[in-house]
Amino acid sequence: MTTTTIPAPQSHPSADGIWIGLRPAPGLCVPDVPVPEGATTCVVVQGGSVQWVGPEGAWPAAWNALPRHGAQGALATPGLVDCHTHLVYGGQRANEFAMRLAGATYEEVARAGGGIVSSVRATREASEDGLFALALPRLQALLDEGVCAIEIKSGYGLALEHERKQLRVARRLGEALGVTVRTTFLGAHALPPEYAGRSQDYTDLVCNEMLPALAVEGLVDAVDVFCERIAFTLAETEQVFQAAQRLGIPVKLHAEQLSDMGGSALAARYGALSCDHIEHLSQAGIDAMKQAGTVAVLLPGAYYTLRDTHLPPIAALREAGVPMAVSTDHNPGTSPALSLLLMANMACTLFRLTVPEALAGITTHAARALGLQDTHGLIASGRPANFVLWPFAEAAELAYWFGHKPAHTIVRQGRIVKQG
Amino acid sequence: MTTTTIPAPQSHPSADGIWIGLRPAPGLCVPDVPVPEGATTCVVVQGGSVQWVGPEGAWPAAWNALPRHGAQGALATPGLVDCHTHLVYGGQRANEFAMRLAGATYEEVARAGGGIVSSVRATREASEDGLFALALPRLQALLDEGVCAIEIKSGYGLALEHERKQLRVARRLGEALGVTVRTTFLGAHALPPEYAGRSQDYTDLVCNEMLPALAVEGLVDAVDVFCERIAFTLAETEQVFQAAQRLGIPVKLHAEQLSDMGGSALAARYGALSCDHIEHLSQAGIDAMKQAGTVAVLLPGAYYTLRDTHLPPIAALREAGVPMAVSTDHNPGTSPALSLLLMANMACTLFRLTVPEALAGITTHAARALGLQDTHGLIASGRPANFVLWPFAEAAELAYWFGHKPAHTIVRQGRIVKQG
Ligand SMILES: [Zn+2]
Ligand SMILES: [Zn+2]
Repeated sequence: MTTTTIPAPQSHPSADGIWIGLRPAPGLCVPDVPVPEGATTCVVVQGGSVQWVGPEGAWPAAWNALPRHGAQGALATPGLVDCHTHLVYGGQRANEFAMRLAGATYEEVARAGGGIVSSVRATREASEDGLFALALPRLQALLDEGVCAIEIKSGYGLALEHERKQLRVARRLGEALGVTVRTTFLGAHALPPEYAGRSQDYTDLVCNEMLPALAVEGLVDAVDVFCERIAFTLAETEQVFQAAQRLGIPVKLHAEQLSDMGGSALAARYGALSCDHIEHLSQAGIDAMKQAGTVAVLLPGAYYTLRDTHLPPIAALREAGVPMAVSTDHNPGTSPALSLLLMANMACTLFRLTVPEALAGITTHAARALGLQDTHGLIASGRPANFVLWPFAEAAELAYWFGHKPAHTIVRQGRIVKQG
Repeated sequence: MTTTTIPAPQSHPSADGIWIGLRPAPGLCVPDVPVPEGATTCVVVQGGSVQWVGPEGAWPAAWNALPRHGAQGALATPGLVDCHTHLVYGGQRANEFAMRLAGATYEEVARAGGGIVSSVRATREASEDGLFALALPRLQALLDEGVCAIEIKSGYGLALEHERKQLRVARRLGEALGVTVRTTFLGAHALPPEYAGRSQDYTDLVCNEMLPALAVEGLVDAVDVFCERIAFTLAETEQVFQAAQRLGIPVKLHAEQLSDMGGSALAARYGALSCDHIEHLSQAGIDAMKQAGTVAVLLPGAYYTLRDTHLPPIAALREAGVPMAVSTDHNPGTSPALSLLLMANMACTLFRLTVPEALAGITTHAARALGLQDTHGLIASGRPANFVLWPFAEAAELAYWFGHKPAHTIVRQGRIVKQG
């Protein structure tokens, strides 16, 4: 993709003022003063934060002088939250996608330079500026839809300098576009080629050198591991979790995607923010997650792209009351997805989430999966102003239509970044 | 959805001039002078039409005075063609979508006013202007992606005045937005409530009154029938085809979606433009379609939304050399899809089309399915200027990424409607 011109966040108009006539989606707004049935909701924004939420005219007189923004009865949601992405990487794998469809074998794809190895090579070869330019239009596609907070993982560098490069780009993207970015160190994503057959040595490197160095540089908001037969063992995963724990950094896990490794129960023991994928999650894993308050992150884009047929245990998660989030899992191999609303549609269509579950999944529960439950994912006072207005009569339309970018007004970090 | 302001087609700048530095997607451009390997392609546009295609500097001297448009090596495709949509209807069915996910039974949905009956009722109740306003943002979402020609069916009116209203809106949309619209009369979509149990009477009405009246008014470019156990029989379908044949109007068919009715072979005998859905198509049907030059229209959005598991016979269609098109089937019940590129991705992912097949499916073969093979779906001289520039290195990226609207420049009907 080509580079986009970036408007500085400060160049967008301030959202300060009284937003009048919103219809918040059910469950995604906590008013300070109850709003009567059938009435619209007003949101007072000042200093970039939501100061008050309630019915028209009931706001404290102190705000009377603020300018008014008429929302004309638009459906409103909090800014969307994409809580699991691998957005920063070199190259792309469209050729591999095409080769597989044309009937190439796994070996032929590998010989042509395909697979995760190709993303690792391209990421290592790219400069920091190069990675930034590649990630920018991908991030912009998500922001155009109303995403206001996003997680970005490393994991294609697999060496200190290259993991650092990925995480620095993630931070720069957040600053350049004025969006909350949570960085996740995923050094234990795959074994780099130079460590073939030396999994323990690489795990030691991750724990003893890479993670401490990157943490000191302030590049690590959370630590993640790909725990799977084809990736890291349960023991290696726990070693990484212990390293994170020593540094006081929260953990999360790519767990039970291809088989039941028991990773989720382990992650829950370490108070993990989330367990992600979890197609093969057991009841014991669900119970442990419930106990620990760990979020279940569902990734229907990968399920779809991989033509997986093993559904995550939605009914059991619902029964247990484990909060479910929904994310793009944007990555070049198994989910080149650029729409969080499409993921909500896929979560409904493929995973049979209800519409309220899918909408909580891309807002409140996604915020919780990032430790942002007190600042994001809900329209409520005391939070940075992040909300989106939609041209819809009903909240269900957010998950019903698919394949468009319908947001007409987006307020992100107190700025009106799109005005419909 | 709310109304969008429509820029008049004439308000967009003319695309006349020499477009320099295009990299056409393989198979979707026919140059007048061969372009050397590795060189870019130039397209001369004058009077809104493509006059010449070939390598830089080789254009006839007569064009030298034309202005230049630099495409800077952008990937180029012809304008996309969406060859099967039900874009014009009243209401929407998000509530039904939500109810089903919440576990409502078929009866509960029906009691709450759901199902196709609800779309028929809402379409009948809507004014022509109301239907226009509802369809406009849906059409705009498709056009934003690079669609330059689209089919729009009636079939939610099911009475002369209401079918007329739908088709008139389809024509008005084409004129208002400057896009090629092909109208299809689908009076035989479902039995209207007032004809319950009187299928033959309704078929007579379609053939003897509705179709002739609408044809005289110039509202019918093609005639379609939903031939299925739950819709119209093979005999009723043939009766409609005969009525169309008497009027010299080409036919097409919703065929073999739920069962093998033999509709495709019947349609082929009437020289049908296309047979659409065809999940249950037999080899005999494929052979008949090949013989007749009938296009197979694949609708992965409906397959996805319905969680169908019966794949259309792609390998046999490929083997027989039947041209395959791919379309949104946009409709409020089984495919509220607003992205043709997403359908290309789904055709690859779910139906295992190759990338070149998927790209031909949304361009050349889709144009053929509408009888537009001589004017649309290919970058070649003698055609109206319809082409799209994309920020991609490889054509495969068009089907690989999903959930965004990446077109950066769109030339539609000789006008630059988007400039990146
Ligand atoms: Zn992932
Ligand atoms: Zn249809």
